[in-house]
Amino acid sequence: MAKIQYGMVGGGPGSFIGDAHRRAINLDGTATLVAGCFSRTVEKSRQTGQELGIDPDRCYATYEEMAKAEAARPDGIRFVVVVTPNVSHYPVCKAFLEAGIPVACDKPLCLTVEQAEELQRLAEEKDLLFLVTYTYMGHVTAKHIRETIRSGKLGKIRTVMAEYPQGWLAHEGDWGGKQGEWRCDPEQSGGVNCLGDLGTHVENAVATMTGLKVRRLLARMDVVVPGRVLDDNDVVLVEYEGGATGVYWTSQFAIGHDNDLRVRIYGEKGSILWRQEECETVIMIDEDGTLVERHRGGGGIEPGAAAYGRLPAGHTEGWLESMGNLYRSFVRCLQAKADGTFTVDMVDFPTVADGVEGVRFVHACLESNRRGNVWVEL
Amino acid sequence: MAKIQYGMVGGGPGSFIGDAHRRAINLDGTATLVAGCFSRTVEKSRQTGQELGIDPDRCYATYEEMAKAEAARPDGIRFVVVVTPNVSHYPVCKAFLEAGIPVACDKPLCLTVEQAEELQRLAEEKDLLFLVTYTYMGHVTAKHIRETIRSGKLGKIRTVMAEYPQGWLAHEGDWGGKQGEWRCDPEQSGGVNCLGDLGTHVENAVATMTGLKVRRLLARMDVVVPGRVLDDNDVVLVEYEGGATGVYWTSQFAIGHDNDLRVRIYGEKGSILWRQEECETVIMIDEDGTLVERHRGGGGIEPGAAAYGRLPAGHTEGWLESMGNLYRSFVRCLQAKADGTFTVDMVDFPTVADGVEGVRFVHACLESNRRGNVWVEL
Amino acid sequence: MAKIQYGMVGGGPGSFIGDAHRRAINLDGTATLVAGCFSRTVEKSRQTGQELGIDPDRCYATYEEMAKAEAARPDGIRFVVVVTPNVSHYPVCKAFLEAGIPVACDKPLCLTVEQAEELQRLAEEKDLLFLVTYTYMGHVTAKHIRETIRSGKLGKIRTVMAEYPQGWLAHEGDWGGKQGEWRCDPEQSGGVNCLGDLGTHVENAVATMTGLKVRRLLARMDVVVPGRVLDDNDVVLVEYEGGATGVYWTSQFAIGHDNDLRVRIYGEKGSILWRQEECETVIMIDEDGTLVERHRGGGGIEPGAAAYGRLPAGHTEGWLESMGNLYRSFVRCLQAKADGTFTVDMVDFPTVADGVEGVRFVHACLESNRRGNVWVEL
Amino acid sequence: MAKIQYGMVGGGPGSFIGDAHRRAINLDGTATLVAGCFSRTVEKSRQTGQELGIDPDRCYATYEEMAKAEAARPDGIRFVVVVTPNVSHYPVCKAFLEAGIPVACDKPLCLTVEQAEELQRLAEEKDLLFLVTYTYMGHVTAKHIRETIRSGKLGKIRTVMAEYPQGWLAHEGDWGGKQGEWRCDPEQSGGVNCLGDLGTHVENAVATMTGLKVRRLLARMDVVVPGRVLDDNDVVLVEYEGGATGVYWTSQFAIGHDNDLRVRIYGEKGSILWRQEECETVIMIDEDGTLVERHRGGGGIEPGAAAYGRLPAGHTEGWLESMGNLYRSFVRCLQAKADGTFTVDMVDFPTVADGVEGVRFVHACLESNRRGNVWVEL
Repeated sequence: MAKIQYGMVGGGPGSFIGDAHRRAINLDGTATLVAGCFSRTVEKSRQTGQELGIDPDRCYATYEEMAKAEAARPDGIRFVVVVTPNVSHYPVCKAFLEAGIPVACDKPLCLTVEQAEELQRLAEEKDLLFLVTYTYMGHVTAKHIRETIRSGKLGKIRTVMAEYPQGWLAHEGDWGGKQGEWRCDPEQSGGVNCLGDLGTHVENAVATMTGLKVRRLLARMDVVVPGRVLDDNDVVLVEYEGGATGVYWTSQFAIGHDNDLRVRIYGEKGSILWRQEECETVIMIDEDGTLVERHRGGGGIEPGAAAYGRLPAGHTEGWLESMGNLYRSFVRCLQAKADGTFTVDMVDFPTVADGVEGVRFVHACLESNRRGNVWVEL
Repeated sequence: MAKIQYGMVGGGPGSFIGDAHRRAINLDGTATLVAGCFSRTVEKSRQTGQELGIDPDRCYATYEEMAKAEAARPDGIRFVVVVTPNVSHYPVCKAFLEAGIPVACDKPLCLTVEQAEELQRLAEEKDLLFLVTYTYMGHVTAKHIRETIRSGKLGKIRTVMAEYPQGWLAHEGDWGGKQGEWRCDPEQSGGVNCLGDLGTHVENAVATMTGLKVRRLLARMDVVVPGRVLDDNDVVLVEYEGGATGVYWTSQFAIGHDNDLRVRIYGEKGSILWRQEECETVIMIDEDGTLVERHRGGGGIEPGAAAYGRLPAGHTEGWLESMGNLYRSFVRCLQAKADGTFTVDMVDFPTVADGVEGVRFVHACLESNRRGNVWVEL
Repeated sequence: MAKIQYGMVGGGPGSFIGDAHRRAINLDGTATLVAGCFSRTVEKSRQTGQELGIDPDRCYATYEEMAKAEAARPDGIRFVVVVTPNVSHYPVCKAFLEAGIPVACDKPLCLTVEQAEELQRLAEEKDLLFLVTYTYMGHVTAKHIRETIRSGKLGKIRTVMAEYPQGWLAHEGDWGGKQGEWRCDPEQSGGVNCLGDLGTHVENAVATMTGLKVRRLLARMDVVVPGRVLDDNDVVLVEYEGGATGVYWTSQFAIGHDNDLRVRIYGEKGSILWRQEECETVIMIDEDGTLVERHRGGGGIEPGAAAYGRLPAGHTEGWLESMGNLYRSFVRCLQAKADGTFTVDMVDFPTVADGVEGVRFVHACLESNRRGNVWVEL
Repeated sequence: MAKIQYGMVGGGPGSFIGDAHRRAINLDGTATLVAGCFSRTVEKSRQTGQELGIDPDRCYATYEEMAKAEAARPDGIRFVVVVTPNVSHYPVCKAFLEAGIPVACDKPLCLTVEQAEELQRLAEEKDLLFLVTYTYMGHVTAKHIRETIRSGKLGKIRTVMAEYPQGWLAHEGDWGGKQGEWRCDPEQSGGVNCLGDLGTHVENAVATMTGLKVRRLLARMDVVVPGRVLDDNDVVLVEYEGGATGVYWTSQFAIGHDNDLRVRIYGEKGSILWRQEECETVIMIDEDGTLVERHRGGGGIEPGAAAYGRLPAGHTEGWLESMGNLYRSFVRCLQAKADGTFTVDMVDFPTVADGVEGVRFVHACLESNRRGNVWVEL
């Protein structure tokens, strides 16, 4: 099958996330990068383009120019990857959607609920696929958990404890390199730091795995490390439709945690424990307290989830494969759209609708915190 | 050295906790049980007494009678252990204090702040030692953490995540045997279940290890398992004097957790992780993220803590030794009082003052919950 | 029920193991120490006796005197605990057996196969119970494994990997205190160090759990740390009757291991993993590779094993409880002998027969090693 | 920099390992597959070639034809990847070396010591780079361990315990799919199964990490699962030059182990523990028994090793990245050869010399086993 051609906005020199998306897409070898606006200056953009073997004519000075030019080409890109700082997600996505080009955008989707809803409306109107790259939900064990809960094995869910602590911004004066800089800058990150970066992952992981909808929440957002102006430690109490409850914790100064997204789900018939840093493993506890551990590639994994595995059990897959799995489904759907075989149930990736939920979540938290940690309906 | 003689109220047939206290005291062989009011009927009390080899004359029908009779004997008990359901802690402790007999009482100390303060005042007036058996703080690694934090190795503490989930009351209609019955009964437990049992352990563990004082808190207490009338899942947001924050979670339906008290403490210079079910181990994370694991009996344990160890490293100590360590310090202090060598800094066990803090904590949580999960000052 | 009275040989000042046996026996409160020959000088023996509240008349100068005197008393000891260095196990046990007194002896039983067989013959002739305190087989999870394998859940066993590394004697010139001194002294330990101490535990653990009999073995025993004259690192290849194989490793210089007895058993239908430092947990792996973890006190533990538990799940039991469980069965059998209710299937502790197997194992290893690491039949 | 073009022999339909090599090479995007002889029939070969987007003219019927044709092209492949069953490694590698084309060959290198030495001689004569893909040594933590030991932090190494158990061939009649079939077939695998597949990984891991050379060994190789004709469980006692010892265990029926390569290295000043299934972590134990855990991407990793990381700490890398790191160094060296900047110290991958050691190791084991498990010099 012919490779699909794609473009990228962001991902210039020193960008971790742009490089990571490119590697993840490379895993399956079904898409090729052919165009980009990698940086804010055309020189830097062309430099990155050259390193990546991109035709200089398709290294653009602005994303607006890129969207127009690529839409006009008969061999134009079939999707765009948006990996800029949060503040520019909205205008970039909008430009490509308006040009009729499907989008894969890093999370959080954008800064305001209005922006988010506009992007969703645009994607629907134009019938364009829209992937929001909540990386961790691509992993086989995350998909396995979703299927396990859907099948009723846990019974009614009673409570969820989820957290995502990191320690990389623990020290005063240490801004954690380029990424830390824009995340801690109210301008570029959109007035929220830790909760926007990590909290949205937590929100999406719980929503994806459990199917629960947040009814209301109560948030406390703290600015702790001297020198910071945005939140670096957040706790959110959550109440879901149907009455289950949850607690979400995120932090950027929790020394000892690298990237420690964990979800623990307690149902009336059992529990499930998952930790993204040990994402090859999923633990389920049965009614009588017996703990059962399963491994990606091994026995007892739901077939629809297991099918995403690329290596035998014990040949560890990780972050890149999780991200790659999002793109695998996204590219398959794009190909199916092209050959007329697409159906909605093929969509096995987080969409713009998930992105909208994430932005709503962040804004409800900001409001709760501003009003003194009170309950806010969603 | 001659053994100290003690008595017990509670701990009759089928009591787990009475038996456990007796075994823990036996560990060092420095105290002997010689009197008791083990049950509500004198027959059952005598039956237990007989099994334990107690003189029938010292098996009492009521605790009031026991307090008076033992106080009157020249060879009367030197302390009493109170292991009744929570509702009777207060009158029993009061009776013995008034009779001039030191008390070791299971936690929580009692039901109301007024009761608690009265017990504290009585103990102080009469200059009587008063142990509240927050078991887990007896462990070597818990003491090591307290000393490590006191010495400043973590710097200023920023946030604390503590939890104590259990799963033994997860199923509808299953009251967890005798203990479960009284804990879930508003009459006997004093109108609070999970938070009174587990929450007070969490509160005490954090206070003991960190020295932090709670300034205010916001609690949500839920009654979840069908058929329950008291809380079985609680979350408390805590703000300490000095500005640090904390989150406490307790549950009785978290299938997969046996008795899972965990404390994670994040400071500006490092972190400490501790789990009571793996209490032979303490994990500290240094400023650069390097994890250092130490073992009871092994290198790097604070000497004052290490001295409580009874076995070499890897010869596992557990719950009984933790409880035994509380009694070790308590009995030593009683002996020192007797021979005139006692000084206040010898007290290395939770006292009535800790018990009062626990009751205040519970009542602040109840108030916060009643008022819709708002902040309540302590 | 009246307490059984017992005596002790060894366990004087500075002895870890004597103290440990006393505490373990204390756990159930069914036996009381009333006599002893705690040290090689009568003064030290009396000093220990005084600390333990023993009548000075029953603190003996020699074990020979003690055996005779106690056998002659109408209220003489009902069993003796032998916790001397290995070299004197044989004469001490022999003296008490000949005096008609049951014995609980620390492992290894003695130095030569002839001695061992004589002790076994004596115990049988006189119909005396004889406990050899292979501590770790007292634990609930060890008993659970034995029952699980007996029931056929693993199918035919194919191979066993067992090890017991320690690190306490890793450093040149460091003899590890009093215990290390006699263990590393050929005179007192009987010409074998690491294999006699740790290897016999491994041999007994595998034999007890699996029921497999060693047919032949090939051993390599090394003296590694400068200054040592006895083995401090040993590897034994084992072939069992029926064709299964095993590998045993023991070491005293494996820095990082405290007391790390581990047994891994691989059968045709599943595997079992057990680690004494985490002895509250047992892991079984099913045919399809699914890992199932069970906890002492929790669901799925074999009832005969579970009955030994003293505390609820998550209230950790450890080394002392393991040792206490050996004595629990031993004392019960002694009581049953006294009241005429004893039957052989009540014996749930390692006996002199296990001790003999241990000595045979050590001697076969010594021979294999001396002959250049060749196979030696047992 | 222009991409290097490469070819592949093997890796046709259903091949796990061919696909895995291609993905690993893709990670850095520095080499492109342009030619192949993917299967034994030209039709299947062309089918795979078509799926991979290879020019049909460069899909060859035989490796001999491919070697000649590619050597003759001005734009011929710059290296060949050999991923056929073991039996054909030798002729394929030889053909390409003789044609002057560098080789990346899966391990074990080939079947006989003579073959291995001939390949080494050929590569040296023709000055051709030769990668043998011992995957696991590519990982950052494996490289970190090598550097740590080189720097003397462990002091003299005393003993090494290494193992590689798997469980995928535990069941009678289950040949584990295509891979299992050829591995268990004496013809295709070269008369050795488990030891050739897993044992060579163990041998290489220990040699790479520690730098120790095997002086002599004693092996026991068992055929256990009914129906097998080749070894499926092996134990090797090893003695290194300088006197250190080691034990290697490999198995294919150890239910519960997926792909469980573990190396534990005990030195006079500390120990190192490493497990490939948790390859993001490396554990070092200091002289006083304190355990220190470090993470790829985190503090304390040797810079030369850390530089291979592609993602921040906690963004897990796995098997693919390990393999990719071997190719990263190999491709860099090829590029440096091309532009004249190559120096020998740039070689940071296992070479034909490592492959020769692996074959010698296997043959010494076979001889030891054949002669009744005696010591065999290398």
